[in-house]
Amino acid sequence: PAMAPTPIPPDPAAPVFADTQTLLPVIAQDDQTGEVLMLAYMNREAYEETLRTGQAVYYSRSREALWRKGDTSGHVQRVRAILLDCDRDTILLRVEQVGAGACHEGYRSCFFRQVTPEGLRVVAERVYDPNITYGPG
Amino acid sequence: PAMAPTPIPPDPAAPVFADTQTLLPVIAQDDQTGEVLMLAYMNREAYEETLRTGQAVYYSRSREALWRKGDTSGHVQRVRAILLDCDRDTILLRVEQVGAGACHEGYRSCFFRQVTPEGLRVVAERVYDPNITYGPG
Repeated sequence: PAMAPTPIPPDPAAPVFADTQTLLPVIAQDDQTGEVLMLAYMNREAYEETLRTGQAVYYSRSREALWRKGDTSGHVQRVRAILLDCDRDTILLRVEQVGAGACHEGYRSCFFRQVTPEGLRVVAERVYDPNITYGPG
Repeated sequence: PAMAPTPIPPDPAAPVFADTQTLLPVIAQDDQTGEVLMLAYMNREAYEETLRTGQAVYYSRSREALWRKGDTSGHVQRVRAILLDCDRDTILLRVEQVGAGACHEGYRSCFFRQVTPEGLRVVAERVYDPNITYGPG
């Protein structure tokens, strides 16, 4: 009799991507300073390319395509460590952020604004001019 | 003639919750050490209760209810600062983690395992016994 195909067991050492469409949140943290730089998403393909290349590759929800961080700006992220949370559904990348910043608005971290009773307050310095890096928006 | 109801403009100083169902990811980071403790989610109600009380309130996707962090364990998170990312769709809470840890598995951070070529490696020390805090699972 024909045998049923053997299901591939989920890898206990990998994030839980239920299928190729699953997106998991990824926190990028500066490995030296501990600063949280950004949050983005990975699908399984992005995760595997990150593992293979040692540089952060995300999945862009707006462009619906792999997003090789730094391809346009040169601000790549070299991966120093990958940690998984207790449920294995969030990824923490400890990275060396190459170039001035992670944020396309010219800041080192995307979290450059604080919620205050008077509204959002910018609490970081601009470290590069996004008009030069990306061209006028 | 009857006037159309005036739409409430979105608050430019708040995270972008499109509606009451929207969940946004929230990174909790130790305000003193910079350690990333956990990632959870908030809906608008959880965010507003967090603002009001100064303690982290999340939305539990598994229980489909507000999750007042520390209600069972006592390990509440006192909010020291709230930062928003450039798209206002991710929240970074800088917190004072009260009690031993943020993770229900007994670790200070949920990110206690690192991906290595030999599989997942525990890279943190257990700081409390979850069987005592939560009862035998």
